[in-house]
Amino acid sequence: MPASMADWRSQCPLNIALEIFGDRWTLLILRDLLFKRFSTYREFQGSGEGVATNILADRLKKLVEQGIITGARSTEDARIISYKPTAKGLDLLPVVVEMILWAARYEKTAAPPRLIRHMSRDRASFIAETRARFEPDAS
Amino acid sequence: MPASMADWRSQCPLNIALEIFGDRWTLLILRDLLFKRFSTYREFQGSGEGVATNILADRLKKLVEQGIITGARSTEDARIISYKPTAKGLDLLPVVVEMILWAARYEKTAAPPRLIRHMSRDRASFIAETRARFEPDAS
Repeated sequence: MPASMADWRSQCPLNIALEIFGDRWTLLILRDLLFKRFSTYREFQGSGEGVATNILADRLKKLVEQGIITGARSTEDARIISYKPTAKGLDLLPVVVEMILWAARYEKTAAPPRLIRHMSRDRASFIAETRARFEPDAS
Repeated sequence: MPASMADWRSQCPLNIALEIFGDRWTLLILRDLLFKRFSTYREFQGSGEGVATNILADRLKKLVEQGIITGARSTEDARIISYKPTAKGLDLLPVVVEMILWAARYEKTAAPPRLIRHMSRDRASFIAETRARFEPDAS
């Protein structure tokens, strides 16, 4: 991810989105934050896909740099950094939901059919319900 | 992309979607097909982001293997393969549209403001209009 606009491969919005989160891991971290309510490095690392430690550390750093998540010392244990999504991160929910629906439609997945039906029939309220679980001042 | 379901990193639909198109290039090829009406290797190669030839060839192959695009000898020049999206590929339009809207909202992009307004105010008709440019039997 380049530091200034001039460094993007192009100014196409899709290209910029892909430069920010177009890889095989970044959105899984966001999934863990948004749906599994994970918030720590250790929790992300234990997620099902077996992310390598260096990749996880790199992606968390980039997500913070891009303003998609914030990290703060845990109030319970200052050695632990607790991450949460910002408004910019929560606004990726529509992207994530459309990806889930597409995969559930075309691939054999472990997605619970009832959840997929809910997501599909009423995307807006599914997204609103997910947002509501985070503080309104998440940004 | 694994050959059988058992080879996915996990059966989470988001993970499977990312294993299929979670990289910095695949959706740009789809963008070129869907919005720029590009259809040939040479056209994709000339797109603004400067994709390397080996990456382009690899991604086209994977898109065909995944049933997202099809390739056929051009009727005008049999040396040229002409690609088009399948129904499964057209069904990625909602993902692409949400990514464009997110980037246009949070980053400085070259997206025409009028197009973004149209996409944002009426996603469904924007998607329907884009679909309509392709044959109904695109699958």
